[in-house]
Amino acid sequence: MRTYNEYRSMAEEALIPALSSLGQIPSPLLEAMCYSLQGGGKRIRPVLLLAACEMAGGNAEDALPFACALEMVHTYSLIHDDLPAMDNDDLRRGQPTNHKVYGESIAILAGDGLLNAAMEVMAAAAVKSGRPEGIRAAETIMRHAGVTGMIAGQTADITSEGKTPREDTVRYIHEHKTSDLLEAAVEAGLILGGASEEQVAAGHEYALHTGLAFQMTDDLLDVTGSAAELGKNPGKDADQNKMTWVALRGAEGTAEDACREAELALNALRKLPWDTEFFKAFTESLPGRKK
Amino acid sequence: MRTYNEYRSMAEEALIPALSSLGQIPSPLLEAMCYSLQGGGKRIRPVLLLAACEMAGGNAEDALPFACALEMVHTYSLIHDDLPAMDNDDLRRGQPTNHKVYGESIAILAGDGLLNAAMEVMAAAAVKSGRPEGIRAAETIMRHAGVTGMIAGQTADITSEGKTPREDTVRYIHEHKTSDLLEAAVEAGLILGGASEEQVAAGHEYALHTGLAFQMTDDLLDVTGSAAELGKNPGKDADQNKMTWVALRGAEGTAEDACREAELALNALRKLPWDTEFFKAFTESLPGRKK
Repeated sequence: MRTYNEYRSMAEEALIPALSSLGQIPSPLLEAMCYSLQGGGKRIRPVLLLAACEMAGGNAEDALPFACALEMVHTYSLIHDDLPAMDNDDLRRGQPTNHKVYGESIAILAGDGLLNAAMEVMAAAAVKSGRPEGIRAAETIMRHAGVTGMIAGQTADITSEGKTPREDTVRYIHEHKTSDLLEAAVEAGLILGGASEEQVAAGHEYALHTGLAFQMTDDLLDVTGSAAELGKNPGKDADQNKMTWVALRGAEGTAEDACREAELALNALRKLPWDTEFFKAFTESLPGRKK
Repeated sequence: MRTYNEYRSMAEEALIPALSSLGQIPSPLLEAMCYSLQGGGKRIRPVLLLAACEMAGGNAEDALPFACALEMVHTYSLIHDDLPAMDNDDLRRGQPTNHKVYGESIAILAGDGLLNAAMEVMAAAAVKSGRPEGIRAAETIMRHAGVTGMIAGQTADITSEGKTPREDTVRYIHEHKTSDLLEAAVEAGLILGGASEEQVAAGHEYALHTGLAFQMTDDLLDVTGSAAELGKNPGKDADQNKMTWVALRGAEGTAEDACREAELALNALRKLPWDTEFFKAFTESLPGRKK
């Protein structure tokens, strides 16, 4: 196993080459895609995918196309989420959002392009490897990203705006908007590493609860953080009457719930036969974000 | 081989079940996706995919998930293409466009959802079949739909608006906006049917030229047709200063070029060892559209 920053560098160095491997992409589409792909961020999803693959005894290099694809999926969702018709954000990670730089039509196409590119990169890797794990990992990632996963969460997030917070709805939004891509990362990494179905199920449980803790602390930051800390405008959730965990349980209750979810994530790790310190450390770093 | 309408019915009956097979899709996302999927149209792409598979000796039932996926890709591209930030169309196939019925944010998510669903359906079918042809067909479809294919064509279409028509640019737009998904249909169908690389290459050539003839006659219809004939507002291309073949070559020149492209398509069919009457008839039906 390597360090978080080693996995992060691996993924960041592979992102643009993965895009270039697809062929000649016209301007300004390529620039718009690269602008958001290179927008930084913690690269949590590709890092967790690579780490899960190595933890299960696989080769991180073989998992790189899937790690890049997952970051492309995450990036496309941010571009479309920021559009005027969606959350209408001007700032993302301290930079102007994609449509502010390239215009709305190119931002829509850049998002479509990154989602499609993710699938192309995974399909090409699966064809090349010839191993059934490749297509299974691709299927897992697309399912978690799709209309019963992340996109279902985006839909619930939008349709619940301005409504009275309900626990089942907020949990549904968090599970799908946030946990689903973390589940995709851990499950796909474990599949590529050759893990058993039971081990993949434990990885799913870990990622589900870590995602909930992650989103709860993110909701907290939105009410307590500054634009400098967040790299985006704080208070947006309240301004847009988003149905957040804080709106439901208050700041204190949300902090408590985040710690409880983190505990559930750590319990799931105990079902795995490997050294899970990497994932334990990742989850324990989250509640600290609220300080 | 079956008739065009038999393949069309096969595909239309399988579309919604293919979507439902993915699981619980929340409202109004499911309704918005189904609204555009059931918007009719000639179902050219799934029909060509199923016919190519059977022509090559394959089983059309096994190719159905890929035919449905291709129609989902085509449908998502229409939803996003019609958005206010793109072509801003109110009417599609005689019906209000998706964003006019469900609003812009749900229309964006419905498009994203259909593209993602297409990949999920193909990946699930490839995992189930266990045959390498499945993932190869999926890779072919995603490549033609992607940032070096259809999305590249959409980008060129938007960035060339209002510019003086150039033959290389108009051809690039037509090849990618229109031919690419027809190439995806014929190539993926042939791959699933077990065709050789040379046969897939001939299928590519057929679909490329048929797509150009198709788009040229479509450009003609936009200047000569009525809203009733088109199911959309005529004259939009001119209103938006689109770089069309008619703007480049005039109505007469475009009609001649469409016939020439159709001839090139028929020549490509002669390289195939099977009865290609189905594809010959399809291409010959196109120039008639301008009457």
